[in-house]
Amino acid sequence: MSLQEIAGGITAATGFVAAGVAAGIKKEAGQLDVAMVYSPEPATAAGVFTQNRLQGAPVIVSREHLASGRARAIVATSGVANTCTGVRGLADAREMAVLAGGLLKIPPSEVAVASTGVIGVPLPMEKVRHGIAAAAASLSPQGGTQAVRAIMTTDTRPKEVALRATLGGVPVTVGGMAKGAGMIHPDLATMLVFLATDAAVSPEMLRRSLRLAADTTFNMLTVDGDTSPNDMVVVLANGRAGNQPLTAPGPAWEEFTRLLEEACVRLTRMLAADAEGATRLIEVRVRGAATLADARTAARAVAGSNLVKAAVFGRDANWGRIINAVGYSGASFTPEAVDIVLASHAGQEQVARGGCGLAFDEERAREILGGPEVRVIIDLHQGEAVATAFGCDLSYDYVRINADYRS
Amino acid sequence: MSLQEIAGGITAATGFVAAGVAAGIKKEAGQLDVAMVYSPEPATAAGVFTQNRLQGAPVIVSREHLASGRARAIVATSGVANTCTGVRGLADAREMAVLAGGLLKIPPSEVAVASTGVIGVPLPMEKVRHGIAAAAASLSPQGGTQAVRAIMTTDTRPKEVALRATLGGVPVTVGGMAKGAGMIHPDLATMLVFLATDAAVSPEMLRRSLRLAADTTFNMLTVDGDTSPNDMVVVLANGRAGNQPLTAPGPAWEEFTRLLEEACVRLTRMLAADAEGATRLIEVRVRGAATLADARTAARAVAGSNLVKAAVFGRDANWGRIINAVGYSGASFTPEAVDIVLASHAGQEQVARGGCGLAFDEERAREILGGPEVRVIIDLHQGEAVATAFGCDLSYDYVRINADYRS
Repeated sequence: MSLQEIAGGITAATGFVAAGVAAGIKKEAGQLDVAMVYSPEPATAAGVFTQNRLQGAPVIVSREHLASGRARAIVATSGVANTCTGVRGLADAREMAVLAGGLLKIPPSEVAVASTGVIGVPLPMEKVRHGIAAAAASLSPQGGTQAVRAIMTTDTRPKEVALRATLGGVPVTVGGMAKGAGMIHPDLATMLVFLATDAAVSPEMLRRSLRLAADTTFNMLTVDGDTSPNDMVVVLANGRAGNQPLTAPGPAWEEFTRLLEEACVRLTRMLAADAEGATRLIEVRVRGAATLADARTAARAVAGSNLVKAAVFGRDANWGRIINAVGYSGASFTPEAVDIVLASHAGQEQVARGGCGLAFDEERAREILGGPEVRVIIDLHQGEAVATAFGCDLSYDYVRINADYRS
Repeated sequence: MSLQEIAGGITAATGFVAAGVAAGIKKEAGQLDVAMVYSPEPATAAGVFTQNRLQGAPVIVSREHLASGRARAIVATSGVANTCTGVRGLADAREMAVLAGGLLKIPPSEVAVASTGVIGVPLPMEKVRHGIAAAAASLSPQGGTQAVRAIMTTDTRPKEVALRATLGGVPVTVGGMAKGAGMIHPDLATMLVFLATDAAVSPEMLRRSLRLAADTTFNMLTVDGDTSPNDMVVVLANGRAGNQPLTAPGPAWEEFTRLLEEACVRLTRMLAADAEGATRLIEVRVRGAATLADARTAARAVAGSNLVKAAVFGRDANWGRIINAVGYSGASFTPEAVDIVLASHAGQEQVARGGCGLAFDEERAREILGGPEVRVIIDLHQGEAVATAFGCDLSYDYVRINADYRS
């Protein structure tokens, strides 16, 4: 499949409009904090949600609304999470959908709602109401740029992607935006990802595509081991591309899923690279695992290890911490079979073979670990399964940011 | 049971001798790095070991040796972990036991061996041999003071305890020493704990006492989520106190177990308070859980949350992160029932009731979080089970120490 990267973020797909406005929910005046994405035409929809037993009110409401497989709008606020807010919080989340539905003239059940920010504080609904009205009034095909800024919290930069591929001779686009910089861990956490595609896909096949794409991307992303109660990934598909509708498995659906997955990979890498305090992206590739579950478990454990993360921050090729994390991950493996290679744009260096250390060039390893994107490649030599986990290093700034988030 | 704290550390129990010598294993000249503990009289013994699938060579050897329930000596080296060292590492660990056994005129199988330090580097056996000989030559009833220093790595201070209680009219002593400041997580991790008691206890009852004591203490300690391949807790019991031997469950054995547990609690608190970069100890007490497993799971998750730890470091009463960690822990609970109280020597403040935030005094909460020992008390209101987890805050120094451990 040949992919083309294009501009436009979530509004790159034909027929979607979006907006981002400042409603005063965030402390700093003028910061965008209400985002809206809308398809004037009917759309299928799918979502995946946090696995935390604590569920933010918007997660509860959006899960209900997306159960039908149809939705046309997303409304998101940033600054306040609307979690641990009791009955009132649930009413507030429902009201967000009712308000947006009223303005867009669609049933509230076709609106997904999301919030991100501080836990335990009620939404300032007066501001939210004004924000939703303002957003609905300023929807435009160029609005993706504003919308992505309106979902940011501790993110230092907006994260958006748009990819185009040809499905059965028809160009299809997937656009997306994401936020999240901390409290990110499988499965999903303080991460909001919204995707829009002009592909024609049935609700069931869209759901399956999203699940597959999320499993290898957002669910393999770990920033700090903390899973948030508010995360969700939502995709809307309006069919405007005019492709033969994807209603069953087959080559065209598989291609669409790869397109969606690639959009998710790129957003995942952006999330990891911009994680709180991160100075570099870490990709952990586990090969030769006995099962896919083993590969994923091992890769996540290494990407999530504070000690591995701190070592990468310090550019210290302390591979013992890598094999150690595989050891406690629960993945089935034989320590004596493990090979470990460190790689980045600066080259690569094997640091362990057969579970034992090699006399590698420390200076060279430091150079490799100095790259903005570091790959840790672990071959377990147990089977054929592979998996990649995405993470980042652990720096002083992570501590600084999280020691004083609310203040 | 009335407990008396006494001096003497691991050699406080009658009949034990110990030593700590400098063998040149650690980089800095003159640093103690070989420890030996010895009971000239026969002793029963028990151990608990790391659950990491990666097991250091000393763990493999000591597990074998302690299987009989009898051992009289412990030899430990610091600076090099003897893990990921292949066949050679296993031979080196066995040689440590053979050497010590030869010098002490006991079978090698009555010697437990331990090592802590960098993974993947072979032990410098020439130095280790000299060290073991020197340690055996300098064993003394006052040697606990040196021995505890000889097992330190990134520890900033030695950790030892000695408690005395009266069992059936007979004074019984438990002495102990511990090391470990990072890579600590259930179950056990880069933590070495050695205990010696003059109680008369059968191997089976000693094993059961140790398991019970470790489950509520060392297995509830988390510093950074990383479980080391080298951890072990070993207890030797020489019977010199002259108590009626404990060979079956009953009040006397329960009292002994409480004595042992109390010694373990104190060492656990010392380990948490001196963890890498820690500025304060965090005790997480979960009450009202449906089951003991739920209570332990929830308490460990909160104590292990980077976000909770960073918030405590920043004295930020961000209770949302606390309930969030309970949420992803996997423990069964109802968010709407959760109460959270923060406490320290400076007082206490309830910050959440029924899963919702209270309008608490932020300044007061800051004061409380400023104490050297912070308690997070979580009532799930689901049942009767309680558990306490031990941890510490996450500071800049944790990152500094771990970014550059090997250099």
